[in-house]
Amino acid sequence: MNVLDLIIKKRDGYSLTKTEIDYLINGYANGEIPDYQMSAFLMATYFKGMNKDEIFALTMAMENSGKTVDLSQIKGFKVDKHSTGGVGDKTTLVLAPLVASLGIKFAKMSGRGLGHTGGTLDKLESIRDFNVNLSISEFIDQVENINIAIIGQTKEINVADKKLYALRDVTGTVPSIPLIASSIMSKKLAAGADAIILDVKVGSGAFMPNVEEALKLASAMKDIGTMANKKVTCVLTNMDEPLGLAIGNSLEVIEAINTLNGRGPKDLTELCLTLGSYLVVDAGLETSLEEARKTLLEQIRNGRALAKFVELVKAQGGNVDYIHHPELFDLGEVIELKAETSGYISRIDSYKVGHASMLLGAGRENLDSEIDYSVGIVLNKKVGDYVNCGDVLAYLYVNDKNVDEAYNMLKEAYTYTDKEITTKLILDVVR
Amino acid sequence: MNVLDLIIKKRDGYSLTKTEIDYLINGYANGEIPDYQMSAFLMATYFKGMNKDEIFALTMAMENSGKTVDLSQIKGFKVDKHSTGGVGDKTTLVLAPLVASLGIKFAKMSGRGLGHTGGTLDKLESIRDFNVNLSISEFIDQVENINIAIIGQTKEINVADKKLYALRDVTGTVPSIPLIASSIMSKKLAAGADAIILDVKVGSGAFMPNVEEALKLASAMKDIGTMANKKVTCVLTNMDEPLGLAIGNSLEVIEAINTLNGRGPKDLTELCLTLGSYLVVDAGLETSLEEARKTLLEQIRNGRALAKFVELVKAQGGNVDYIHHPELFDLGEVIELKAETSGYISRIDSYKVGHASMLLGAGRENLDSEIDYSVGIVLNKKVGDYVNCGDVLAYLYVNDKNVDEAYNMLKEAYTYTDKEITTKLILDVVR
Repeated sequence: MNVLDLIIKKRDGYSLTKTEIDYLINGYANGEIPDYQMSAFLMATYFKGMNKDEIFALTMAMENSGKTVDLSQIKGFKVDKHSTGGVGDKTTLVLAPLVASLGIKFAKMSGRGLGHTGGTLDKLESIRDFNVNLSISEFIDQVENINIAIIGQTKEINVADKKLYALRDVTGTVPSIPLIASSIMSKKLAAGADAIILDVKVGSGAFMPNVEEALKLASAMKDIGTMANKKVTCVLTNMDEPLGLAIGNSLEVIEAINTLNGRGPKDLTELCLTLGSYLVVDAGLETSLEEARKTLLEQIRNGRALAKFVELVKAQGGNVDYIHHPELFDLGEVIELKAETSGYISRIDSYKVGHASMLLGAGRENLDSEIDYSVGIVLNKKVGDYVNCGDVLAYLYVNDKNVDEAYNMLKEAYTYTDKEITTKLILDVVR
Repeated sequence: MNVLDLIIKKRDGYSLTKTEIDYLINGYANGEIPDYQMSAFLMATYFKGMNKDEIFALTMAMENSGKTVDLSQIKGFKVDKHSTGGVGDKTTLVLAPLVASLGIKFAKMSGRGLGHTGGTLDKLESIRDFNVNLSISEFIDQVENINIAIIGQTKEINVADKKLYALRDVTGTVPSIPLIASSIMSKKLAAGADAIILDVKVGSGAFMPNVEEALKLASAMKDIGTMANKKVTCVLTNMDEPLGLAIGNSLEVIEAINTLNGRGPKDLTELCLTLGSYLVVDAGLETSLEEARKTLLEQIRNGRALAKFVELVKAQGGNVDYIHHPELFDLGEVIELKAETSGYISRIDSYKVGHASMLLGAGRENLDSEIDYSVGIVLNKKVGDYVNCGDVLAYLYVNDKNVDEAYNMLKEAYTYTDKEITTKLILDVVR
């Protein structure tokens, strides 16, 4: 077999066999295939796509390029969750303890933020002393003991994906459905859960610009799940405004705590209940989504969901005082952004909000950036709200970094209309 | 400016500006842009193409990436020739002295053979002591003194093209019209001639599989020539059988000598007269192609064309006894290939003939292969000829290398039909 022949085969629109894909991915992971040939292959794939069998073979080859996590020793139903990345997306912080409080095992490896999107690990680290660096055996033990663990992905998992993603990032080959689907699913399959819920964000702050493309990605991921004998549900959700009200690390943890207390923003609460209901049904705890939702609401009402979050924080070394007393979180100085016009808000550009928050220091411009947990943005109005000129649109929590720039960027995020607007959070479900 | 943005721009089908293309080519030539980004750009270009202005900018950027040859000090009309590479293509060995014998300056930098195609430099080196390694100033002096010089391309010329070609070769991005046209034309423009004749081969042994693709390439090269104020003529010629009868280095030199003596194969003679006529008209020596052809035929008849070849060989250190007495060439043992059927020959697959000759040692399997000048193939029949079972189709000149393999490969090159066949050498002209 010869790499050049495989590049030409894909370039000319033919499908590759499993053996050929294994050869490519193994050769690339172990350094025998150089970057310059892989990038040509990736660009050919961008243009010519892959069929179901190729995508599955690619996913499995990537999964097998590193260590995998064997959760089989853990009794009970194991679930995992992934979001394609949004702005204000603190869903995991709510969903994981909510579901785990019912005895479902929530074993989650998360990522860090880059650019305008935040990362679950960074958010958790805004809780003093929270440790995201558990070993795989500590991770498994914790899931076994308290049903929940959230850690960073270890380097040994999915070696090929790490190399491939870095290459795609600098060669214009990120937005390719087969490459995105296999990258996400290879990590999820390596992490070993029985059921996986995927939150596919659609809109300006998201990977997928429209529902049509998002549905293609969702179907590709669902197909991989089916072929791997996993229960996979993809929920397409609106990212044409940030999720919830808070953007920024400590601010988002506070909002997650409020949501676990039953006082969260409507959209975030709704999303957590929707995703959670599918997992509760997958786990066989309830047979209908309606019953599952009631069960989850009860876990919020009776305080068990929040208690599970406290347990998580404690198990991973975090200071639980912050969860009981969110006012302990150190926050920046508050600046108000006021409306300069009247009307219904028709859009709050997630990309711009996320970028403004990053400028304040809440996110990373590059991999070496240091994060300021105390800054961010809290929206006072959402899409569909009517505002009068002078009303507060949002509060910026700032220190001394890029305040004017962030303020102006945030101001630009708003679009108005004079007609009433209805919004939709859940755009579609592939199950 | 940022390479990634330029890759994405091309990937999405937009045109690049001259400044952007200069940035890419200069950055690549000086090592600032890595292979893996350039290969992604090349694959995007393969799929999305380039417009006239982009192709011209690419050509000029490549030309300017290395030294150029300034022929302006040479009085008179300077011409150059390029073939996209065929089998049995010894045209330069005939055309150059034929045209130079009329006082036209023929300044030619040639290449070596690789795979199934031969190279002019290798053929010339089968003449004992012929030196293809002149300095640029020696090259210019020789063209000034005797109107003709044929040398290898120096390393300092077109640095970007060398790097790009090597990368294209291993990334499946060779067959792209903008990339082929700019590669050829940048070298020709760097070599400084006033008029350029391009022989675009079409068929199994050639870069271009059909007339339609060949016409696109020819038009692209003609456009570059026009934008660079050069007279450019592209002649599309048939490569569905080898050119002439001889394939292999010494054998081709002998055939070239015979052709300069007026005893060459019909197709080779015809091609040299056709290409030569355009150059004679370009140089202003005659106003019509008919008159030009008569003039060239006279140069063969009166012996001046061959005399010019002798002058060339002498000037570059070669032993002219070989030209006066071609029987001095050392040749391999002769094996006959006989027809095993009767009928009209409908095709002699150039690729297979070239490959068989390479197997015998006449060509290079890879860049390190050593060439055996004494081996090759001489066809006894051409397409359109009627053969009876047992007639000799071809003579293989062999030493001990790969004889059976080459014999079988050559046998497979023949296709027969029971109907009469007419062939066409010149398929089209873009001028």
